[in-house]
Amino acid sequence: MTAEIVSVGTELLMGQIADTNAQHLGSLLPELGIAHHYRQTVGDNQARLVASLRHALSRSDVVFTIGGLGPTQDDLTRDGIAEALGATLVRDEEIAEKLRKLFALRNLPWSESQLRQAMLPEGAVPIDNPNGSAPGLICEKDGKIVIALPGPKGEFVPMVDGPIRAFLAERSTGQIIHSRLLKVCALGESAVEDRIRPLMAGENPTLAPYAKPGEVHLRLTARAKSVDEADRMLDPLEAEVRDALGWTVFGADDQTLESVCLSRLAERTLTLATAESVTGGGVGARITDVPGASKVFRGGIVAYDVDAKANLLGVPRDLVAKFGPVSRECAGAMASGARSALGADVAIALTGNAGPTPDTDGKPVGLVYVALATPGQTYVEEHRFRSTRDVTRRRAGQVALTLLYRWLSSALDPA
Amino acid sequence: MTAEIVSVGTELLMGQIADTNAQHLGSLLPELGIAHHYRQTVGDNQARLVASLRHALSRSDVVFTIGGLGPTQDDLTRDGIAEALGATLVRDEEIAEKLRKLFALRNLPWSESQLRQAMLPEGAVPIDNPNGSAPGLICEKDGKIVIALPGPKGEFVPMVDGPIRAFLAERSTGQIIHSRLLKVCALGESAVEDRIRPLMAGENPTLAPYAKPGEVHLRLTARAKSVDEADRMLDPLEAEVRDALGWTVFGADDQTLESVCLSRLAERTLTLATAESVTGGGVGARITDVPGASKVFRGGIVAYDVDAKANLLGVPRDLVAKFGPVSRECAGAMASGARSALGADVAIALTGNAGPTPDTDGKPVGLVYVALATPGQTYVEEHRFRSTRDVTRRRAGQVALTLLYRWLSSALDPA
Repeated sequence: MTAEIVSVGTELLMGQIADTNAQHLGSLLPELGIAHHYRQTVGDNQARLVASLRHALSRSDVVFTIGGLGPTQDDLTRDGIAEALGATLVRDEEIAEKLRKLFALRNLPWSESQLRQAMLPEGAVPIDNPNGSAPGLICEKDGKIVIALPGPKGEFVPMVDGPIRAFLAERSTGQIIHSRLLKVCALGESAVEDRIRPLMAGENPTLAPYAKPGEVHLRLTARAKSVDEADRMLDPLEAEVRDALGWTVFGADDQTLESVCLSRLAERTLTLATAESVTGGGVGARITDVPGASKVFRGGIVAYDVDAKANLLGVPRDLVAKFGPVSRECAGAMASGARSALGADVAIALTGNAGPTPDTDGKPVGLVYVALATPGQTYVEEHRFRSTRDVTRRRAGQVALTLLYRWLSSALDPA
Repeated sequence: MTAEIVSVGTELLMGQIADTNAQHLGSLLPELGIAHHYRQTVGDNQARLVASLRHALSRSDVVFTIGGLGPTQDDLTRDGIAEALGATLVRDEEIAEKLRKLFALRNLPWSESQLRQAMLPEGAVPIDNPNGSAPGLICEKDGKIVIALPGPKGEFVPMVDGPIRAFLAERSTGQIIHSRLLKVCALGESAVEDRIRPLMAGENPTLAPYAKPGEVHLRLTARAKSVDEADRMLDPLEAEVRDALGWTVFGADDQTLESVCLSRLAERTLTLATAESVTGGGVGARITDVPGASKVFRGGIVAYDVDAKANLLGVPRDLVAKFGPVSRECAGAMASGARSALGADVAIALTGNAGPTPDTDGKPVGLVYVALATPGQTYVEEHRFRSTRDVTRRRAGQVALTLLYRWLSSALDPA
């Protein structure tokens, strides 16, 4: 089975956005044993869209379209597919009714143009879109399949990972490519590579490292007849990798540093709090992105000015006056203060200057202190990042969570 | 003049990397007045590469290839171009000599396979690559131009922004494409379209809407001899759009909802605080992502459990017991509490259930209350989202900031 992606949108051609949807779908196809030799990108123009679709249909079994399913006059994908397949567009009354109900439920003003989203090429099967209004479509004709997917990422990814993946898995045949991901923190990419180099020489299964911000991800991939067979090939390789890297392997696949920390805290019935300055709430947001975080996370304080640090976290004003808000001392006091204020067993704190200009007290851009207060003692670390504001804030959160993970792994030296 | 990009690399099809090179080049073409209707992506396979190049040459004046110029056997772009153009590959002795010198200078081990990089389709002009070993190529034949560019970003971007840009500017005929972006909140995509439909019929300048989470972006684009001339065409269109949409146009180009709210607050010397439950700190993180946020933002409280709501925000325990933490009453009390606790003039608060399971007190997944406490009064809004946890949290932040923006725009009915 061969597949081809046709991404639709003038904004893609003009470089206004990166085509991460095609990237996501492209990474799924090998796992399902589907060959994928070409990709096309075309603007919001029906004649050119039809030409691209016909070209794709002439050489591929399955053609995916991404985008152009919305209600506006620029959204031409339904029309283009119907024309390319020589099918008539018909209105699906069930979808029309769903749309009307959705708009009523959300209190959104209804407009008849919304009904464009209820038009389907005759015989097409709609795919439910719980995250948006336009359904996806599966159109089969003359031995070819066209699958239309919505463009917004929050609608596209769940549809692809859910119903589309299941549909394709059923249809495709033969060898599959199956992989798993191990995630490493507290070590750089070359330090990880040095420890696993002998394991990287294999041809099937393979082992490949990818550097991520503050983490290294290791992809273990096997080619086999079935997922079970692939898993049997991957198990011994995973064991060797874990043996080489020890506690620095914090998780696998969908696990995140924050989800692993929360599980470990929950196992030990410990609660967590945060005190943030430089990250402004970003670490709390990461933690609460994990479903069920409320079992462990008490809450946090975003102390962006001195008053907030003093009144809510009990950081002594003379400490801030003496050492400055971006200091080892202030970070430690923020972490201890958050433990008390929120009645938590452990607390992490972050203070720093993400730029773009030096602090009023002259602390350089990129200087960050992270602290961890535990029942036993408080740990503080100094970091210096040479990055944009945005990246520095993300990395600061990463080192704070890594500090917590190391403590939970008993891999932290006494302060 | 029309152009088409052919990106070469199996790793692009497999989704291992995003095609940010094509994005970069795509954003340059409109500025140079070069039309760009199609893009193709093809793997490291000579027959398929040749098919893609021939297809591109059949409909475009200029064809760019990206990638596949290195020394390995996977690097087939030179061979593919020669075959597609019907040209012979010949060795350029000057380039061969340069390569040998480069390797000696850098103390790199020499291999004869490096000489692949000195092969050119007969008549091609090499483009110097100061950041790598493989030169770029400009091949002209039968009225068509093929431009081969290296794949590594650090080689690609300087070559495109330097010699390629200069070459294209000289060849293209005058007209440039210039655009600006207006950003709209508090209205859905079709409601926006209903108000500006007459303005969308124009051919030059054009007006096109793009739906974003909780916002609609409008791109105004003019084709003209110069940026100044384009600006003179866009000014009256922008005025008409602003007239049709009023205060719902919150910003332009790089402005964000949060940056605009912070500027408006700063103009009125008002300070801001947040109280977050469902978003866990994400709204504070968005606010503090704006450089200089500390002038306005006092801080926030992430009150994830009842104790935190009571102790830090002063939300009465019996109020939470009576109405539940996800309630109109609790949202209002959280906003007022944040104003007092952080000594701010205005505060926004969010409480809700982002799922995946209903609340302990039975509040449905997707129910969110956002509140705004001001010196005069407190406003509360109810929203219901039918999305993933992640999307619900983002949308919750968006409606909270929209509420603040509406108050700042005097567009909020009294509570």
